Amino acid sequence: MRTEFLKACKGEKTDYTPIWIMRQAGRYLPEYHTVRSKGSFLDLCKNPERAAEVTLQPVDIIGVDAAILFSDILVPLEKMGCPLEFHEKRGPVFPEPIRTQAAVDALRIPDAEGDLGYVMDTIRILRKELVNKVPLIGFSGAPFTLATYLIEGGSSKNYLLTKRMMYENPALYGQLMDKITDCTIAYLKGQVVAGAQALQIFDSWVGVLAPCDFRDFAYPYVKRIIDALKAVTDIPLIYFANHGATLLPQTKHCGADVLGFDWRIGLDDVVRQVGQTVSIQGNLEPLCLFLPEDKLAARVRMVLEEAKGARGHIFNLGHGIVPEADPAKAKLLVKLVHEISREMRG
Amino acid sequence: MRTEFLKACKGEKTDYTPIWIMRQAGRYLPEYHTVRSKGSFLDLCKNPERAAEVTLQPVDIIGVDAAILFSDILVPLEKMGCPLEFHEKRGPVFPEPIRTQAAVDALRIPDAEGDLGYVMDTIRILRKELVNKVPLIGFSGAPFTLATYLIEGGSSKNYLLTKRMMYENPALYGQLMDKITDCTIAYLKGQVVAGAQALQIFDSWVGVLAPCDFRDFAYPYVKRIIDALKAVTDIPLIYFANHGATLLPQTKHCGADVLGFDWRIGLDDVVRQVGQTVSIQGNLEPLCLFLPEDKLAARVRMVLEEAKGARGHIFNLGHGIVPEADPAKAKLLVKLVHEISREMRG
Repeated sequence: MRTEFLKACKGEKTDYTPIWIMRQAGRYLPEYHTVRSKGSFLDLCKNPERAAEVTLQPVDIIGVDAAILFSDILVPLEKMGCPLEFHEKRGPVFPEPIRTQAAVDALRIPDAEGDLGYVMDTIRILRKELVNKVPLIGFSGAPFTLATYLIEGGSSKNYLLTKRMMYENPALYGQLMDKITDCTIAYLKGQVVAGAQALQIFDSWVGVLAPCDFRDFAYPYVKRIIDALKAVTDIPLIYFANHGATLLPQTKHCGADVLGFDWRIGLDDVVRQVGQTVSIQGNLEPLCLFLPEDKLAARVRMVLEEAKGARGHIFNLGHGIVPEADPAKAKLLVKLVHEISREMRG
Repeated sequence: MRTEFLKACKGEKTDYTPIWIMRQAGRYLPEYHTVRSKGSFLDLCKNPERAAEVTLQPVDIIGVDAAILFSDILVPLEKMGCPLEFHEKRGPVFPEPIRTQAAVDALRIPDAEGDLGYVMDTIRILRKELVNKVPLIGFSGAPFTLATYLIEGGSSKNYLLTKRMMYENPALYGQLMDKITDCTIAYLKGQVVAGAQALQIFDSWVGVLAPCDFRDFAYPYVKRIIDALKAVTDIPLIYFANHGATLLPQTKHCGADVLGFDWRIGLDDVVRQVGQTVSIQGNLEPLCLFLPEDKLAARVRMVLEEAKGARGHIFNLGHGIVPEADPAKAKLLVKLVHEISREMRG
């Protein structure tokens, strides 16, 4: 198995900089569409064979150094008792949003195997398929990000309802976050047992919080998840606080092995702030895949140079690859990262 | 006239911290709806008497220390030759987006008085009405933000088309930005002649750029506008780079008298970075208006404390006030800022 990814997570020396791509198993790949066309998005998440199949596609086609479980951060919430729908245009929808004491009280903590066995089955299939290939990353959403979907009933523009609950009814907000946190801990522990070799916690929307609100309303729950996992496993944990540059003075203490970054902060700035305490992941602007080859190479080199002083660096895009991206460019990106990082090591 | 706002912009001593609120003339005010109901949003922008009337409302009702011209950043683009529509749900729409050489070539530079006389008339009415009240702020969008609307044809989720033009056809992108910049310079100079007593440049979407792309594709145009204005006027210039914390190492050199900040960076962090070189504006999380009174007061005090070392501080929300806000809370906010800042001055 190629282990550069796992080594970089732990700050061990690597021959080249490993790369994986957020949403690497996704709509930019024609091969994905072929599998996806057999049913709905949720059908695909819940079908272990097919979910495993699309998980493997970018490993074989693009050549990334890690596979990440094909799933969605919202699937455990469905098993908390919240019906979940995916609409072609609006995206995820929770038709029964969680906004009252009664609704929070009614939420249950799902059992990883009993309720989310399809995810665990996918992981088990993948571990077999990935022998002699690359490590498998499991994942979850972070509590704040998950809470926004439950409270807003789907995606949001300004997170009005979430922040109103935080500000107007912090006790209720806290109870909801506690339940989501407990759910996430159980879910991620289940993934570890099933065979995940690293875990990423996606905090996709946390960048909408003021630093003081992050401290009070989001960070403690992330910390609790990381502490709970660290007590049972030493696989690498990655925390990705999207658009979270100003949260870094806090996130750097979260206990994760790796912090992920979007493209809106230079990794040199990150390294200055975190020193040798954690490895870092990121952070090419996703739309750089539309640059001509020479400029893409220059940009890859820039990111690698910026990350040079890091304890460990896993290359990634700063957010998910867009459906409009050309798979050939994604493949080229992997090649460039490998070549330039080897060259930089002399 | 109450001059605390102008003094703070220039770093002069003030008896209290002045405050105005982004979108203070807006949908949270029932009085606004009364005027707005007489026609479309664009009708209101183009009717100097009515635009002046809604501009004055928050001065009289909420008690803010500055008025800001009621208009929209997109109106000058219409006069560049781009038909503009406002849809109730989608917001602004340019049905003929600018994506080709021919489209860029066809853009003209509007004349402030000849093409946008209704804005200049509004300013002239307001200056008369505001005698003995508060100063009047004029404004424009910043070139990158304006370009996103023209290229995308309206609002956008990931600015795919804008960034593709930047990356795939930088020469065309540069020509478009040059024209928008020339338009903006003429437009703002016109506002100065008409009587604006300060100007804010809104860069609402610039926070989606990587620092190196901001350097290459956005900042030079902002700098050119500020330089052009500084050559003809000494009224305060405010540059608001929304969600731009990581751009601060660059924006602090832009030459504006004031830098505006959203709520995702602490003003203490800002002061550390800018020192005494500029005044700062911001940055209460807009949804803090939903906090109970005692917690709102504590949060106001926090922002004031964080800004304490600044050359000058103008209090504001970190972004526009939301339509759901209670006008009574906005009024309370103004009172709290005045009282607490007076108290802090001993």
